[in-house]
Amino acid sequence: MNILKSGWFSEVSDLWPGLALSLKVEEVLHSERSQFQEILVIKTKAHGRALILDGAIQCTEKDEFSYHEMISYLPLCSHPKPKDVLIVGGGDGGAAREIAKHPDVERITLVDIDDRVIEVCKEYLPRLSLGFSNPKVTVFVGDGFEFLRNHLGEFDVIITDSSPAEHLFKQPYYELLRASLKPNGIIASQAGTAWESMQQVQSTFQHCKTVFPVATYAVTAVPTYPTGQIGFVLGSLDSRTNFAEPMRIFSDEDLDQMEMKYYNDKVHRAAFILPRFVEKELQVAQSTN
Amino acid sequence: MNILKSGWFSEVSDLWPGLALSLKVEEVLHSERSQFQEILVIKTKAHGRALILDGAIQCTEKDEFSYHEMISYLPLCSHPKPKDVLIVGGGDGGAAREIAKHPDVERITLVDIDDRVIEVCKEYLPRLSLGFSNPKVTVFVGDGFEFLRNHLGEFDVIITDSSPAEHLFKQPYYELLRASLKPNGIIASQAGTAWESMQQVQSTFQHCKTVFPVATYAVTAVPTYPTGQIGFVLGSLDSRTNFAEPMRIFSDEDLDQMEMKYYNDKVHRAAFILPRFVEKELQVAQSTN
Repeated sequence: MNILKSGWFSEVSDLWPGLALSLKVEEVLHSERSQFQEILVIKTKAHGRALILDGAIQCTEKDEFSYHEMISYLPLCSHPKPKDVLIVGGGDGGAAREIAKHPDVERITLVDIDDRVIEVCKEYLPRLSLGFSNPKVTVFVGDGFEFLRNHLGEFDVIITDSSPAEHLFKQPYYELLRASLKPNGIIASQAGTAWESMQQVQSTFQHCKTVFPVATYAVTAVPTYPTGQIGFVLGSLDSRTNFAEPMRIFSDEDLDQMEMKYYNDKVHRAAFILPRFVEKELQVAQSTN
Repeated sequence: MNILKSGWFSEVSDLWPGLALSLKVEEVLHSERSQFQEILVIKTKAHGRALILDGAIQCTEKDEFSYHEMISYLPLCSHPKPKDVLIVGGGDGGAAREIAKHPDVERITLVDIDDRVIEVCKEYLPRLSLGFSNPKVTVFVGDGFEFLRNHLGEFDVIITDSSPAEHLFKQPYYELLRASLKPNGIIASQAGTAWESMQQVQSTFQHCKTVFPVATYAVTAVPTYPTGQIGFVLGSLDSRTNFAEPMRIFSDEDLDQMEMKYYNDKVHRAAFILPRFVEKELQVAQSTN
């Protein structure tokens, strides 16, 4: 199965062997090899524009909102007052766009290692990269590890919006996340899907659980990700945190004004309800109350 | 993109344009054209065996449990005493297998138009078709419409486990379903996904709503269906039915004994929590209480 053969882009990876999602391509808008990765932007037939890094679909305009709303508002609404937010990765700007809508958020810092992703998204994915033009947002180009080491104790919420195959998913990274949080801070990281990458989900969850007094796992639907869903690991330094019950509940009118298409407090709670086989594998005592 | 080319099966359909899921094939186990459809059974590299009808993946051994548990237990657990259950379609046996586990269910009738699907599944998909060997189950081969006309007022629950492209998804079918139910009976039908087939979801939901005093829509994750999820329309003749709150709650021990891998009462409730954009499109006043 060849990538970009016969007018389709096909996503083939050892992370989800024997399974491939393909999007029909109308036009290749941009293709380059940066210092870090292959960057590809295509115009698809039915899913708007798509950003693809090293052969893995990062987002399509059609369904990116569910990922970006959920990776942002699951942690934000679990924190009593998220003023300072750090995004590690997120070079497309989608998470920054969503986080900037939260009225308590005063400063958003985004650190992505690849400035070419940021520049390419500014040019070809303006609906996502509009996040960068919000005055709350400051962008740093560099290594997330390095950045965290130099900003200890500074953030209320840290969101890791990055591909699963990176060094950001080992335990030292979680220890660094903890050190860079303010008291009672909260983290969220992309954490793969239990249907195809249970081992990755389990190890990410264990790292988080080892480092944070409260740790849990949630999922959301993203049709153009492998298996049609993606998971998040969440950790809190505050032992009173119950991630499954949002502290901040936005009204329907608020959410309309914020142009939220996926998230509300009911969706928040439901994201923590896991199928039996996932609950057993994670041995998480999830609470719905 | 060619089906079965280069060792992959690719699912391409006008129902989800521009999107294709592919499964790596190790062996084609069976291929025939029956009176009604192309029947294909493949051994995949990573998803067990898969049944494919007219080019559409019906189920894989790896993830069929979520579909079959949910299409069965969302309606069964919404009924106070589901003794007589009818399955229209379901020729693979997976729904029958699940329904037979419910202790209140006394008789399961399955009517599928294509006896070749049933026979092929008995031979190649024994994990699903073991449903047929349960003494509660009686199989009829024939047209669902015709069968319903001859069995008015006989069933507590009717489950339509069939492909979306059929005549079973028009309003006359829903009127016939109503007529074939006992008082306070309940139906559930496969109803497509809001991400790719919103129009189909809306029209199926409207048919159901027009005919039944209580109607709603729920979703479950099925990684090898287009978009990674599938929806169900549910209808009840009992105006007191609240589908989002199960009447029958099985304990964890019960569910272990029943070998349930996906469903429990929390998963039941969460299935009715829809993303904001879906809730708006359906104009459903969902209740989580």
